[in-house]
Amino acid sequence: MIKQVAVIGSTGSIGQQTLEVIASQSDKFRVVALAAGENLELLNDQIRQFQPEMVALAKSVSPERVNHPKPLFGADCLNEIVSYPNVDIVVIATPGRAGLLPTLSAIRAGKCIALSNKEVLVMAGEIIMSEAQKYGSEIRPVDSEHSAIWQCIQGEGSESISKLWLTASGGPFREFPIEKLKTVTSSEALNHPNWKMGQKVTIDSATLMNKGFEVIEAHWLFGMSYERIEVLIHPESMIHSMVEFMDGSIKAQIGAPDMRLPIQYALNFPERVPNNYRRMNWLNGQSLNFKQPDIDRFPCLALAFKAGRAGGTYPAVLSAADEIAVELFLQNKIDFIQIATILKKTLDSHSSVQNPQIEDILAADIWGRDFALSLV
Amino acid sequence: MIKQVAVIGSTGSIGQQTLEVIASQSDKFRVVALAAGENLELLNDQIRQFQPEMVALAKSVSPERVNHPKPLFGADCLNEIVSYPNVDIVVIATPGRAGLLPTLSAIRAGKCIALSNKEVLVMAGEIIMSEAQKYGSEIRPVDSEHSAIWQCIQGEGSESISKLWLTASGGPFREFPIEKLKTVTSSEALNHPNWKMGQKVTIDSATLMNKGFEVIEAHWLFGMSYERIEVLIHPESMIHSMVEFMDGSIKAQIGAPDMRLPIQYALNFPERVPNNYRRMNWLNGQSLNFKQPDIDRFPCLALAFKAGRAGGTYPAVLSAADEIAVELFLQNKIDFIQIATILKKTLDSHSSVQNPQIEDILAADIWGRDFALSLV
Repeated sequence: MIKQVAVIGSTGSIGQQTLEVIASQSDKFRVVALAAGENLELLNDQIRQFQPEMVALAKSVSPERVNHPKPLFGADCLNEIVSYPNVDIVVIATPGRAGLLPTLSAIRAGKCIALSNKEVLVMAGEIIMSEAQKYGSEIRPVDSEHSAIWQCIQGEGSESISKLWLTASGGPFREFPIEKLKTVTSSEALNHPNWKMGQKVTIDSATLMNKGFEVIEAHWLFGMSYERIEVLIHPESMIHSMVEFMDGSIKAQIGAPDMRLPIQYALNFPERVPNNYRRMNWLNGQSLNFKQPDIDRFPCLALAFKAGRAGGTYPAVLSAADEIAVELFLQNKIDFIQIATILKKTLDSHSSVQNPQIEDILAADIWGRDFALSLV
Repeated sequence: MIKQVAVIGSTGSIGQQTLEVIASQSDKFRVVALAAGENLELLNDQIRQFQPEMVALAKSVSPERVNHPKPLFGADCLNEIVSYPNVDIVVIATPGRAGLLPTLSAIRAGKCIALSNKEVLVMAGEIIMSEAQKYGSEIRPVDSEHSAIWQCIQGEGSESISKLWLTASGGPFREFPIEKLKTVTSSEALNHPNWKMGQKVTIDSATLMNKGFEVIEAHWLFGMSYERIEVLIHPESMIHSMVEFMDGSIKAQIGAPDMRLPIQYALNFPERVPNNYRRMNWLNGQSLNFKQPDIDRFPCLALAFKAGRAGGTYPAVLSAADEIAVELFLQNKIDFIQIATILKKTLDSHSSVQNPQIEDILAADIWGRDFALSLV
């Protein structure tokens, strides 16, 4: 039976790759809804190609500019799209807090969710996971790290897992003289060695905050305590993550860096589908290296563990403040080191709400942004 | 319920480690039978510790020297032991062709078999696998490589497997000047970098014949054509083997080299049991390296693929001739290079029986030994 897919954030990098995967499997998937932010030109191309029933754009434009008879506008219409009865799978590929409420609506509509948005679980992991259980909604990770862990635990009992090893490339400053980090430019920070990604996540990779967010996501996705999640620097980004079991055996998932693979896996799970994506080349003298992350170099990683352990609205505040701090760095208003300083000060000043409701989380998000901005 | 275990080859390295694993899980396993070759002193110790119902020794000694009221003697009694109704799991830890007939008897008695004998599947893979299917006997690999593959395919559909990657340390001569291989001594060849093993398998590791046998085993165990089995040099012996899936995703099983882990896994499958075995140390700057095996350096690997593809009694002859050639090398009667020469000549001179019966295989074994000996 053909699965009907809604792609939220279709014009972003993951959204485009999702549509590429779907186009190559037209016998299995049909695009039933597309939602984009501002890139109307690309959205119109996608509408022509996939002929979705529903289309949404975050910002209002005059309807005749959209290549669809009844386009929807604004953030609220996303709730309508993700709970549309014809939709089987919702791909959440929109970045930032914009993904949170649509994900929650999709969960409450009992949809299967392919989640490629970090903030959803970082901000509201507890709510998301308990609502997913309540409504029987399946959450499938699309991040390469969480997809790796998900693949490695197939066929294993959850009680036999002893540790998750999240790998991190270490970003462009892995070996950079630590005393010079203060003076790195945004273009240096945007030069990621292994992955082509958006600006925000690339800077988060340079600070390792991205990995910190992934630790919090892994905590919620796999129900694993923070003591049992470790981050490992692995410059080649070939082992996407690992699972260690009670008996000491470790499983790793490996592959050439290509986001289409975790996207395809999330859409087709549990089936694996042949493709022509890039393959590992073992025979040419491959070397895979690993070391402990240097917390002096990457203070953001420690902040993420701290916020995650503290729980409540701390992770939401961290995520919010980080969005501001990265933006300030990209605008050359603060230096690289100050990103962590701002985050630490914001967390230290926050009064967390325990067992937060979604309103508390949204309020903490706004507070975190305002406070971080006020520090500059 | 406590599982009753028969250990065939209890005084060898794998046999001893099997008993160590069982001793640490006395709530789950009981040793009901022990069979050993010649090491009576160690066998008597094991009898004192485990109090088995049945005991067998390959060579006859006067019964009062055995610490058991009714010891059995000779090879034939193994068939009686492995088909004893009280036995649930038979661990085949005896090396060489001596493992073949007891394994077949255990299969025909419908036992679960933990197989740590290469020759069984190399010599008679087709018979073993079809008899196992016929009698509902489960064969669990104990070799670290096959255990790794077995672990990696858990939870995956067999149709989604595209390739098996068997890793090989490359042995002591991985980087040795190829022109000097002619003059290496048996003590140099016995100096394996990563594993402590018996003499025969250590020399087989130096020639990569061991890996060649494992290719043939993997072919039978996992029903994989030879085109879809690759050998990869991995000097650190931490990734024990890998499975590549149709979508390009690869799973690897990793761990510090310790045979107790695959033994414990085979006994407890599908459960994983906590232990205090050696763990991987990722944080200290681990590096894992891989390259294509050099067929000029390791001609035995190509011979194994060739014999495996040719099928019939060729693999049995290869195994038999190799036992002779390695023995001759250990006795300094031939040089290291001549091992492969003898094997090639023996294979070239063999008239294979297609779809062999067990008698054909035993005859080919004898022919292979005689012919190999006749070459010196």
